[in-house]
Amino acid sequence: MTRTPVDATTTPAWTALSEHHAALIPDLRGWFAADPDRAARLTRTVGDLHVDLSKNLVTDETLGLLVELAEQVGLAERIQAMLSGEHINVTEDRAVLHTALRRPAGAEPSLLVDGQDVDGDVQAVLAQVGDFAEKVRNGSWSGVTGRRVETVVNIGIGGSDLGPVMAYEALKPYVKPGLQVRFVSNIDPTDLAETVADLDPTTTLFIVASKTFTTLETLTNARLARAWLWRRLQEEGVIDDSEQAKKDAVAQHFVAVSTALDKVAEFGIDPANAFGFWDWVGGRYSMDSAIGTSLAIAIGPERFREMLAGFHAVDEHLRSTPFERNVPVLMGLLNVWYVNFFDAHTHAVLPYAQYLHRFAAYLQQLTMESNGKSVRWDGTPVTSQTGEVFWGEPGTNGQHAFYQLIHQGTRLVPADFLAVATPAHPLVDDAAEGAPDVHELFLANFFAQTKALAFGKTAEEVRAEGTAEEIVPARVFSGNRPTTSIMAPALTPSVLGQLIALYEHITFVQGIVWGIDSFDQWGVELGKKLAAQIAPAVAGDTAALEAQDPSTRGLIDYYLAHRAR
Amino acid sequence: MTRTPVDATTTPAWTALSEHHAALIPDLRGWFAADPDRAARLTRTVGDLHVDLSKNLVTDETLGLLVELAEQVGLAERIQAMLSGEHINVTEDRAVLHTALRRPAGAEPSLLVDGQDVDGDVQAVLAQVGDFAEKVRNGSWSGVTGRRVETVVNIGIGGSDLGPVMAYEALKPYVKPGLQVRFVSNIDPTDLAETVADLDPTTTLFIVASKTFTTLETLTNARLARAWLWRRLQEEGVIDDSEQAKKDAVAQHFVAVSTALDKVAEFGIDPANAFGFWDWVGGRYSMDSAIGTSLAIAIGPERFREMLAGFHAVDEHLRSTPFERNVPVLMGLLNVWYVNFFDAHTHAVLPYAQYLHRFAAYLQQLTMESNGKSVRWDGTPVTSQTGEVFWGEPGTNGQHAFYQLIHQGTRLVPADFLAVATPAHPLVDDAAEGAPDVHELFLANFFAQTKALAFGKTAEEVRAEGTAEEIVPARVFSGNRPTTSIMAPALTPSVLGQLIALYEHITFVQGIVWGIDSFDQWGVELGKKLAAQIAPAVAGDTAALEAQDPSTRGLIDYYLAHRAR
Repeated sequence: MTRTPVDATTTPAWTALSEHHAALIPDLRGWFAADPDRAARLTRTVGDLHVDLSKNLVTDETLGLLVELAEQVGLAERIQAMLSGEHINVTEDRAVLHTALRRPAGAEPSLLVDGQDVDGDVQAVLAQVGDFAEKVRNGSWSGVTGRRVETVVNIGIGGSDLGPVMAYEALKPYVKPGLQVRFVSNIDPTDLAETVADLDPTTTLFIVASKTFTTLETLTNARLARAWLWRRLQEEGVIDDSEQAKKDAVAQHFVAVSTALDKVAEFGIDPANAFGFWDWVGGRYSMDSAIGTSLAIAIGPERFREMLAGFHAVDEHLRSTPFERNVPVLMGLLNVWYVNFFDAHTHAVLPYAQYLHRFAAYLQQLTMESNGKSVRWDGTPVTSQTGEVFWGEPGTNGQHAFYQLIHQGTRLVPADFLAVATPAHPLVDDAAEGAPDVHELFLANFFAQTKALAFGKTAEEVRAEGTAEEIVPARVFSGNRPTTSIMAPALTPSVLGQLIALYEHITFVQGIVWGIDSFDQWGVELGKKLAAQIAPAVAGDTAALEAQDPSTRGLIDYYLAHRAR
Repeated sequence: MTRTPVDATTTPAWTALSEHHAALIPDLRGWFAADPDRAARLTRTVGDLHVDLSKNLVTDETLGLLVELAEQVGLAERIQAMLSGEHINVTEDRAVLHTALRRPAGAEPSLLVDGQDVDGDVQAVLAQVGDFAEKVRNGSWSGVTGRRVETVVNIGIGGSDLGPVMAYEALKPYVKPGLQVRFVSNIDPTDLAETVADLDPTTTLFIVASKTFTTLETLTNARLARAWLWRRLQEEGVIDDSEQAKKDAVAQHFVAVSTALDKVAEFGIDPANAFGFWDWVGGRYSMDSAIGTSLAIAIGPERFREMLAGFHAVDEHLRSTPFERNVPVLMGLLNVWYVNFFDAHTHAVLPYAQYLHRFAAYLQQLTMESNGKSVRWDGTPVTSQTGEVFWGEPGTNGQHAFYQLIHQGTRLVPADFLAVATPAHPLVDDAAEGAPDVHELFLANFFAQTKALAFGKTAEEVRAEGTAEEIVPARVFSGNRPTTSIMAPALTPSVLGQLIALYEHITFVQGIVWGIDSFDQWGVELGKKLAAQIAPAVAGDTAALEAQDPSTRGLIDYYLAHRAR
């Protein structure tokens, strides 16, 4: 698979897109006026998701050419290669099989990759995680005093944190009452300190999530958590400071998500309580693996499997739907359209669902670690711009913060708006006129923003309201600011799985067009290595300090001079 | 002040910058090697902040030309105009005096603007807020049963939310034990429901923050909170459902930050408990006004005044420091350099301080609502690109998420790195080799990332490590990715105030160069207006539904068909 990727910019479709773009005058008002079927014709369905693409800066011709581009870069073949376990992660020579994590039990034909019974292994770990989750939930797993677990603390970072915390927040209404999950990721000592400050050690279970069990932040926090557990249990008189007592405490209060069983055992965790995964699951594609153990405990194994079924529905859609109706393919191609033809550098994701308040942070890793690259999978330089900065906060909060720039700034910011029809907490504002349903007010804002962005407001319309002439320009909205609207019936585990799989595959599609390996992350290496070199200097080692450049030395000197002890 | 702004692009400095940029080959490695004093010479101080600008893509000549640009657009005069209360918010014909909020008591000469004794008014409200905060803290203010307040719930959105929540999170170690503040902003009914779910109504105080007391989200949430209070107090048997009992409960459990005293009274809040501000304080510049009441309660009036003193120190620096050493001026000019000459669309802010985890969200409103604009203050179109998308998450979390793109993506992302020398929670990892100080490991990551971004890693260096040739390109780091490093002794209230004021003035400087009014926000109007028009359609009004465009109608139809009751 080290074959050179097709250079998208040399395809006939790219040339045609360039010419088409040069001739295109975006005019959503005119396009809608001239074509009453535009909205219906440009709306698609994937699983339970209703996806309205009509407010994008595209005509039928644009979409046709984008689909041709997908064909000409060999996307169909690449999708099959991924799903069948070829080593499409070229630079690390690995299969990319997060889609295998959600294949249903007994799927036919079964998936054998590199001699491994992938389906069997996935189901075995899933059963192990499910059993453990059930035990924690029903109290048959308990802490050293026999009290059941009330708080699970997940210690992980990057993919071992962002997915679980995003999903836990998203699925709060499904969390078992009396159980909570907290998340520690940052090596800032503040993070752990604040997280455990008010916890009862006898009812706290730590999950240490690190594939290699060597991640600096995670292992540091795990050791600090272990020290906290010992100290607090001793303060409570629950254990003495004998090695055996401490060992037993760790065995009852720590489990691991890792494949490095020797290191897990060395830490004091029973390897029987280590849940594994495989080198064909990248960190940012792993929240539906054992990395989701904290979530499985919180919502229960059955709900967890519903989430997996949601992922799988979108995988099947990706596999079997013609590109013209294939939502992740179309959305990925639209992103390419904006990045490469409209020079968009960013992409906003704006969930009208407070429970999705960490969705953008999750997507930042998924998209930017995957596609923020400058070389293709064969080592040659990319031939066009690549990944966008993904960002966002929930609506309506964003409306009162940064929407000004999306409406009236000089840069194009394509945006995805997400919402659900049925809220988890229906509330009626009895005290207001007409007793409005609050969720409907909320959705009215979603619809209003996408409408305002698409159609804008002309100077004539502003004048017609009697605006003083000198203020007219400031009140004009250009319109033609593209959005995609995604709706679902409710924010269920299945719908959450569908949303995540949708963005996984959008990311994949963009990576294929650009010819990059969306599954490696060499760009995180250098900083890690330098941190290890710099740490002794920060700790006051003179030789290490002298070896630094003057800027780094200046910063370390500042630290050494200003640290209060 | 409706005089046309200077068009920066027509100044000699801009022309010189264009030529300089065309000739400049960024080479931080070479520049540092050739000039051992570069770091020292390009480091600046403002208040307690140590600001290392040396890893930016600038030479001495660049900075000289940028300072000339500032002179040629009349920045000095604009700074004086702002500080003295001229109506520099032209489109709304208002003074812009957030700097007056932190002038010390008795400052000379006193500030009289439009006939108003600004200093006197500011000190009066500050005293009122301080007295109230003290009463809540010492228990002389209590709920209907006489129990003291344990939880303050701030209800606001945009500037009435993002500043207070960011500052509360940042200053957690200063919060009075036994007191907590929560924040409700979103009109998603989930937000309020989750926030109050576990609260005791007898010990909860709501602060409703809305200048006009008409903000849709805030007033809706305030009414829902009031209904919750009445229901819960009745369930607890604390009050009956008489109008008088309900009135008394509101009077004891609600206060307001507002200037609309009639509406405050109508809601049931005693106007004596409404803390005001003025039309010369914009929402996104208001966290140091009465909008900070929740923070004043949490950390106490004395700490709040320390924070104001921190703001003021930076204001004085802005006012009196020559541009060559003026940190907000230089940082603002650097942002212009990247936006207008390097085509940067975004700017990352990366605090190595978990307590600053909402700092980027706060800055999004400050910067993007201020400078995300396409017309100048006289109504003419801007003559260059304007505001960036600001974004970020705390390090080290970001390192495991999106840093890949900053290191190896195709787009330039200038980044500010922030850290403090003294952590709030010193922790030593006893169990690891050499018992490292965790805060030092944390800082080593900060230093390593800025070093890696600046200096990169060449193909020769990668090869020298024995890397297989086909992986070499993927492991190369270009370097020359610009960063500014900001350090402070500790995250005190004063330092937080300094940081916020720094970014306020950076934003102002950029706005002046671009000739835009950084203090209006016309871009939020249209969405609000359309939401009011669309709400009846969402509620099922057929005529309102028919009046919508087909895309909006399709989304509303989807909602009506899929809402479960």
